[in-house]
Formats: sequence, structure tokens, C-alpha cells
Amino acid sequence: MIKDIIAAINKGENFLITSHIKLDGDALGSELALYLTLIESGKKAVVYNEDQTPGHYSFLPAAEKILHELPDVNDFDVAFILDCSEIERVGDKAKEIAKIKKIINIDHHISNNGFSPLKLWDGQASSTGELMFRLFKQMNISMTPEICTNLYAAILTDTGGFRYASTSKDTLWVAGNLVEGGANPQWISENIYESDAPAKIFLLKKTLETISLDMENQVGSLVVTKKALSEAGATYEHTEGFVDILRSVKGISISVLYTQLDDNLYKLSLRSKGKVNVEKIAKMFGGGGHVNAAACRIQGEIETIKRDILKAVRETR
Amino acid sequence: MIKDIIAAINKGENFLITSHIKLDGDALGSELALYLTLIESGKKAVVYNEDQTPGHYSFLPAAEKILHELPDVNDFDVAFILDCSEIERVGDKAKEIAKIKKIINIDHHISNNGFSPLKLWDGQASSTGELMFRLFKQMNISMTPEICTNLYAAILTDTGGFRYASTSKDTLWVAGNLVEGGANPQWISENIYESDAPAKIFLLKKTLETISLDMENQVGSLVVTKKALSEAGATYEHTEGFVDILRSVKGISISVLYTQLDDNLYKLSLRSKGKVNVEKIAKMFGGGGHVNAAACRIQGEIETIKRDILKAVRETR
Repeated sequence: MIKDIIAAINKGENFLITSHIKLDGDALGSELALYLTLIESGKKAVVYNEDQTPGHYSFLPAAEKILHELPDVNDFDVAFILDCSEIERVGDKAKEIAKIKKIINIDHHISNNGFSPLKLWDGQASSTGELMFRLFKQMNISMTPEICTNLYAAILTDTGGFRYASTSKDTLWVAGNLVEGGANPQWISENIYESDAPAKIFLLKKTLETISLDMENQVGSLVVTKKALSEAGATYEHTEGFVDILRSVKGISISVLYTQLDDNLYKLSLRSKGKVNVEKIAKMFGGGGHVNAAACRIQGEIETIKRDILKAVRETR
Repeated sequence: MIKDIIAAINKGENFLITSHIKLDGDALGSELALYLTLIESGKKAVVYNEDQTPGHYSFLPAAEKILHELPDVNDFDVAFILDCSEIERVGDKAKEIAKIKKIINIDHHISNNGFSPLKLWDGQASSTGELMFRLFKQMNISMTPEICTNLYAAILTDTGGFRYASTSKDTLWVAGNLVEGGANPQWISENIYESDAPAKIFLLKKTLETISLDMENQVGSLVVTKKALSEAGATYEHTEGFVDILRSVKGISISVLYTQLDDNLYKLSLRSKGKVNVEKIAKMFGGGGHVNAAACRIQGEIETIKRDILKAVRETR
């Protein structure tokens, strides 16, 4: 299969590269590494994303080349759909992009629905970035420091800084090879993890005031209120990572972040350390996700919602 | 030199293994990996540390074997002093331990004063754990999962989760080999980084109330008061990592944690992202440390101390 992908790259002339909405480091790093590889081998390529690039990823080499208006799809002979388990994850333009005659999917999500017959898929891989490295090795491409930086960022972020269970010996070996090729672990980490707006730390301060730890049910929760957002001068983007804070507490196996969207409307982000399937809980309320990370929206008073979630957790155990 | 160390290991029968006070993951992981290696090859060995093992390192294989009372030094023919730049770092028993006839120092601190002629020292290495791996490879030792777990923990923690500038291609390759040998990145990270006492998060909440960001001077500060400690039911051990929180803020290049030891006595922990030498600042107040991490104690009112530090920062730039 990987040979068919390489053949399609060699034969193709004009490539569209895209990924999922709610961009993350794996989506962006994989896209930009592929973009730079194609451009350097004399091909034409465009990266299109529906969503804007989050500020802490704007340092990624070639990030400024990303388009947010889809060009005429008739211009492309190949479309790469990266890090997507379903083509719908691309956003509003999914149907348009699906018209491109050769579609290639590179992905590592276990839930991949096989939408693309031509694919490089490995549900055991830590990240799409790790699969891109595998592809480039097979192609005998000499990876520039810019390509290595993008792939390192992809792997780093999708393993939570080499912490998740998906971190394998190969993941770390690949990361070592990327450093050898010019990726700088300290600089990349600083850009991604140490470049928060001051508003974020003020929002954290206000959010921690809402902490509640239910040790009996092993549930920790935090609430981001609209009032806190406005007082801290923060936006919803600044809540990134808040749901992981309570994971650090011993004895807490489920962490819930309630983000107030409107007076009586909350977005819930749920994280599990593995004991409880939070996807099941999110589904009860019309949401979805994965076993250890899921989300849903619930209308109502915060205290009522919290009680309902606790009940759902007890039923799911 | 490494051959002389291997010869001393082969010839020796009874080994003392020790490291510095204020134990960290690199000290403990390196000690325990060496201990298990020696025991498995039929030698006698003892790990002695002046300080107790911090709770989040008690999961390390063989951690329960560590002694805190120094046995008769006449019993040992070799002493390993690990991760120490000077023998005094061992604590009160340094002079006693120095009597052991063969001293071997394995260390990666640039400031190493050469106290031991027989040494494995590399100021470029990420950690003493990485040097232990190099030694074991040279010895052709087949590392058990327990040994790999200890070395992985050593490297992980001394690179701040593979984030510091010392993270090299070799660091990541070694980490990959340790995973191949049985270290579990997720389990190790969870034990070290996700096993905080609930009191710690309550202390964080109270400490964040004291946040001040001086964007002009790029200084961020937090104060841990005795009142906050007592209200959170926390101890000084729970302040670990607090000084790094403000590093995440863009535009902050120096982070200071003021920990109240007594009514008018504070311990200052200083961290720099590289622009300002915080060792110089700490030295002005009788403290010490490294370019990017230093500490000192100052007597006085908190507001006066803060002003003095700001003045020192301006002078040091």
C-alpha cells in the first residue's frame, strides 16, 4: 500500500493537503512536513484548513503558507487527508474535496472508517507524524530541519509530551532521528508549551477557584465561567489543557471541565485515566469521542449538570 | 576511564551507592538501576541516602531497599557517588563516605569539581541516567525491565519530560531502547507527574492568588505563604514545580517562587529561560545554583524583598 502512495506522489503534480477541524499539533505538523517535502521535490502543493492556526503553532516552519479558502478542487490531482478517521472531519468542504480523483488518507485513529481505499493507517502508531516519518524514510527523502521540526511537533503533541500509552520505542527512536535531522526539542517545547498569553494564567487562577474533588467517585471538576473569561480577558482558546490539570491528582480517575457557553449551556470535556470509558458518558448526552477523551454539550444549571454527570459516572463504572 | 570503572566493578565485592541530598528522579533512578545491576550479578550492594525518598518516586523498582542510616563504611570496597558535582552534596556523611578506598563518580553537571579521579563524567549528557546506560552497554549487561524503568525515570525527570536543551538525539534513542527493554512511558509518567496529593492542588489554587506578572521586566512571581500551606493541609514538598508554572507565560523570562519559611524569612527559587543569569542574582543574596535555576534565602518583608529582587534583575540584565 505504501508503494502505491509513493507511486501517486511521483506521478502527481498538484497536491491538496488538509486535515481535521479543531487543529492540533499532529494535524499541522504532518501537513506542513508533507507540504515542504512536495515543494522541495518540485511539485505544486497547497495546505488548506477550515480553522485558523492556533497561535502557539504559528512558529511551525511554513505555517504562514496555510490557506483557509479552498481553491478550485479541479486544480488538484491528489488530495492528502491527514490525521482524519472520517472525511467529514475536514469540515464544511469535505464533499467538495472528496471530488478530487485520488484521495490518500494517512491516519492513526483506531476508529478510522476506511473512507479512503488508498491509505497508510496504523492504529498502533503514536501519531500521524510518526507515519509521515515512515513514509518519508521509505521514499528515501533527506528530511530538512524544517521538515524534522514539523514532524517532531506532531509526535510531541499527540503523545502529550511522550506521556501517553501510545509512546513506543519506535516513537522515541523516530524523535531521536528527527533531532539528529535538526529538530530542537527545547525550542519546539518552549513554543508550544511555554508561550501562553498572560490572560491564560489569570483564567487558570479564576478557574481553580471552582475546583471540586469527589474522592469517593474519583471525579475532579473545574468550571470556566463566562464571568471568569471576561474578567481574565481570555477567550475559549485559553482553556486548552485545563481538563488535564486534575489528572495530576492521585485518586482522581476522571476529570471534567465545564466551559460555560451561554447562561445555561455548558460544554463538557471529559478525560479518563483508563478506568472509566468517558465516551459512554458523553454519548448519554449526545456527545462523542474516545475511551479516554470525550466531549458533549448540556443545557441546564451547573449544579444539576454536575449531579447528572456523577450519576452517569456511577452507572458507567 | 570507563574500562577502569568496569574493572573496579568486576573486582569489587561490596558496594555503597549514594547520591545528593534533595533527591530527584535522576539521583534515585541511577542509584537503583546500579543497585539492581550489581545485585543481579551476585555482588553485595547498599543504597544509602540522607533524605527520604519523595512519595512520587516510591514506585521505582527496589526503592524500598534504600537505607537512610549509613552502615559501617569499612564494609565497602567501592563507593559510587552518583549525580554529584562535589562530594559534599552527599550530605552530613560525606567525610565518612570519602574514607572508602575506591570512589567512583558518575555525573553530568558542568560544575563538577573533579573530586574523584575515577569518574564517568560528561557535561553534555542529559542526565546521570543516560551515562549509566552508556556504562551498562559497555559492560554488555542485559538490562531487566526494572533497570530500564529506573533509567527511564532518571532521564525523563532530568530533561523535564524531554523538554530541556540537554535533550539530544542520544537521549531519545536511549529512551527508546529503555522502552524496548520494558520501561513503560505512560506508567512511569503517571506515577511521577500524575500522583499529586489533593493538598497540592489546593495549595496551587491559593498560591495562584498571589500571582504577579511584571511584563516590563519580564518577571513573574508567586508567593507560598505559611497560611496557604496550613489552610491547604500541604507541606513544603507540595510546592515542587510551582516555580515552573510562570515559565509557560509568553514574555516572562524569569520566574520567582517565594516560599515563606518564617514570618519574615523567605526561600526564593529562581528560574530563567536563558536571557538572565539567575545564579548571579541568587549570589547577591548569599545563595547559589546554576545559570537557569538558582535559590537563596532572604529575611524581611515580602514587598521589600520583591523590590530588591526586581532591582537585582535590572542590574543583571
